[in-house]
Amino acid sequence: MLAQRLIERKRDGGRLEPGEWRALALAYASGHVPDYQMAAFLMAAFLRGLDRGETAALTDAMLGSGARLDLSHLAIPRIDKHSTGGVGDKVSLVLAPLIACLGVAVPMMSGRSLGHTGGTLDKLETIPGFSTSLTLAEARAQIDRLGCVLIGQSAEIAPADRKMYALRDATATVESIPLIASSIMSKKLAEGLTGLVLDIKRGSGAFLPELARGIELAELMVQLGADHGCPTVALITAMDRPLGRAVGNSLEVEEAILTLKGEGPPDLLAVTYALGAEMLVLGGIAANHDAARRSMEHAISSGRAAERFAQIIEAQGGNPGVVEDPAVLPQANACELFTAPRRGLIARIEPRAIGRGLIALGGGRTTVDDVIEPSVGFVITARVGDWVEAGEPLATIFARDSHGVDTGRATLRAAISIGDEAELPLPLISHRVTADGVHAYSASGPGPDIADAGPVTRDR
Amino acid sequence: MLAQRLIERKRDGGRLEPGEWRALALAYASGHVPDYQMAAFLMAAFLRGLDRGETAALTDAMLGSGARLDLSHLAIPRIDKHSTGGVGDKVSLVLAPLIACLGVAVPMMSGRSLGHTGGTLDKLETIPGFSTSLTLAEARAQIDRLGCVLIGQSAEIAPADRKMYALRDATATVESIPLIASSIMSKKLAEGLTGLVLDIKRGSGAFLPELARGIELAELMVQLGADHGCPTVALITAMDRPLGRAVGNSLEVEEAILTLKGEGPPDLLAVTYALGAEMLVLGGIAANHDAARRSMEHAISSGRAAERFAQIIEAQGGNPGVVEDPAVLPQANACELFTAPRRGLIARIEPRAIGRGLIALGGGRTTVDDVIEPSVGFVITARVGDWVEAGEPLATIFARDSHGVDTGRATLRAAISIGDEAELPLPLISHRVTADGVHAYSASGPGPDIADAGPVTRDR
Repeated sequence: MLAQRLIERKRDGGRLEPGEWRALALAYASGHVPDYQMAAFLMAAFLRGLDRGETAALTDAMLGSGARLDLSHLAIPRIDKHSTGGVGDKVSLVLAPLIACLGVAVPMMSGRSLGHTGGTLDKLETIPGFSTSLTLAEARAQIDRLGCVLIGQSAEIAPADRKMYALRDATATVESIPLIASSIMSKKLAEGLTGLVLDIKRGSGAFLPELARGIELAELMVQLGADHGCPTVALITAMDRPLGRAVGNSLEVEEAILTLKGEGPPDLLAVTYALGAEMLVLGGIAANHDAARRSMEHAISSGRAAERFAQIIEAQGGNPGVVEDPAVLPQANACELFTAPRRGLIARIEPRAIGRGLIALGGGRTTVDDVIEPSVGFVITARVGDWVEAGEPLATIFARDSHGVDTGRATLRAAISIGDEAELPLPLISHRVTADGVHAYSASGPGPDIADAGPVTRDR
Repeated sequence: MLAQRLIERKRDGGRLEPGEWRALALAYASGHVPDYQMAAFLMAAFLRGLDRGETAALTDAMLGSGARLDLSHLAIPRIDKHSTGGVGDKVSLVLAPLIACLGVAVPMMSGRSLGHTGGTLDKLETIPGFSTSLTLAEARAQIDRLGCVLIGQSAEIAPADRKMYALRDATATVESIPLIASSIMSKKLAEGLTGLVLDIKRGSGAFLPELARGIELAELMVQLGADHGCPTVALITAMDRPLGRAVGNSLEVEEAILTLKGEGPPDLLAVTYALGAEMLVLGGIAANHDAARRSMEHAISSGRAAERFAQIIEAQGGNPGVVEDPAVLPQANACELFTAPRRGLIARIEPRAIGRGLIALGGGRTTVDDVIEPSVGFVITARVGDWVEAGEPLATIFARDSHGVDTGRATLRAAISIGDEAELPLPLISHRVTADGVHAYSASGPGPDIADAGPVTRDR
């Protein structure tokens, strides 16, 4: 009877008390409230909304439904980064070892790819032997030793959220800001953090394309973090084109390794540095963003960041040789250059089309049960605003076979627009959201001022 | 994937096409769409609404998910009555044999009690031996012979509705006018009718207490009937107090038999005559309401109506002796008079409290699995507006034991208010809704003008 009364109240626009959220989350996690009642409740919550207090209560309820990673014995700061997901976003793979080797513990729990966006776990698992399933005790021991662990959400963490998320996915109740915020924050707060940095994507390839919605989500999560004694900072970054050049699981691992060795694409490096600077300043390791940036540059140039990645890989059962020689990663059977079908300006590289193209190649998922082909994908060297001649190489397609190459070619032909004018791309990092409010992101921040917002119609 | 797209569309306020409603209803009935997806869809439909075309399409879809009672071979009109349910509403038991003996086929499929309102099937099943589970072929044969059958919704009729209704009941998505209208009409249209009369209750004991909502539902169902070539008329009747005197399963059968013999309470008789007149006029059996009323009075005074009820009971395996001697019905072990605790005016007899009191005595259901005690209930002789002295009998309590008597006493004490003024009761029949629109119910109609709307503060 409990569930029915709560569904009714939410349906009629009422609010639930913290104890009711707790009871509902526990009853659902334990199977006492069936899926169909929770589905009706979630749709009512989706359409009627949750106020700030309810969102905090739901976060607490899901957090309290499971175990936490207790890292309170550590003297060093514990800070994680979370991204709302995008195409080509391999920042986590670079950032985690980079920040860990600078004295911040990074207990990173990530997700799998679903739909057009990639997932950190699927990328890591392309490294031969790498295991992302550790117990909380194993994770804790690895953090003690290496300051970093890269794992999936274990069954022990926020089981109510885990079950609810799967249900939301099947019932068209995902894109609700309070439900998203509480889902993410319940998992992140279970990591026992002293700080959290969020990368909220905007643009056509983002989960929430509109800036206003992204900012709303950022503000809510920053507030939830503050309420739970976990200082949280969010950056709003561009997802109107893929991040970096590689899109595809093993291809992205390779690009992350290149980046850790100082050879990464500038946009990927800029986002990594911007998020990393927030982590280092939040953790009290760097006094300001400039100092943070210098530390990160040094960690890369000295080889320490790449070395830490190798150690983490080895600790989690993977072949650390991948850092020296990415050729140990699965390799695609077929590859082919993709060249410009005409001369002109690269007007647009549509990330959603690229992400769906990766699924078509077998490298992504439309349902949680799909098995991923690790080696396939794209490396897109063309950038929006580039002038190209017909026949000039724009990208490489990596596929299982020649049929896949055809699929990849069709994808790129649709996704990369060549015209006489380029659309103005979004600024790579546009806003910074803290407990103090929303601010335009300052170029005096940590990263290079990428030329994305520069002139967009060029003649040759 | 179908369901998810449809949930999404309804969630965002869009509409479904007829083919989509059909596909959804069939996929749900066959188990291809799971309960949790349908629950999310129903909540979206509840909150976003269905337009008239969608409601018609859903009605068709549910109707088309099962079999129909084919009565097209009959030369006589086939007309049913449906009530939205109330406390003490035993009109069906009187009306079905009464109208059948006047030359209208009444293929009546009824429901069970749930919550504070009673159910015709539970009442009929208190008659020893009476079976409400007939196949469609058996029902058809009985209608050929007796012009009437009193059965439950068979599994063959509108299975999509059957499944959906149970889900709505568990997910707080019942009180949606388009969902109610399509659920009722899909079942009624499966009865192969040439006309339908609806009794839409209003007032505190009604499913939809507010008049405006009742009229909205009536208009929608009348339109759905017209769209399907089944002329439909609705009356809006009072449910701010119980109908008649008896509340409780076998007690109501007894009162229905008394009414068929000309000894029923005036309000029950008035509602029965009003609905019956609509049926007889719709069926072309009577030229107008006055003529219809005279026919019904004669059917009762001649004993034909009671005799037809006995024949129906016998045909469905029940003991027809009940019509002569209602003492063959289950009798309560304990009964006690309930007397006025103070002198004053009967200000209010709250039907919801009486209905819940019946559940407390064991005579109703809170879940579909509850087993009903047939004999328990109340016979309330007091009427709103009566002046009573302290100690004067107001009702009789029928219970399983002395503990039940206590429960019954507490129920009546809370449900019957005695004060210095009586609330103005609702007019017994206030509106008539046809395809032409909504009209105030005229006293030149079929029934006696019951004094409910008369003076309400009386001195003695």
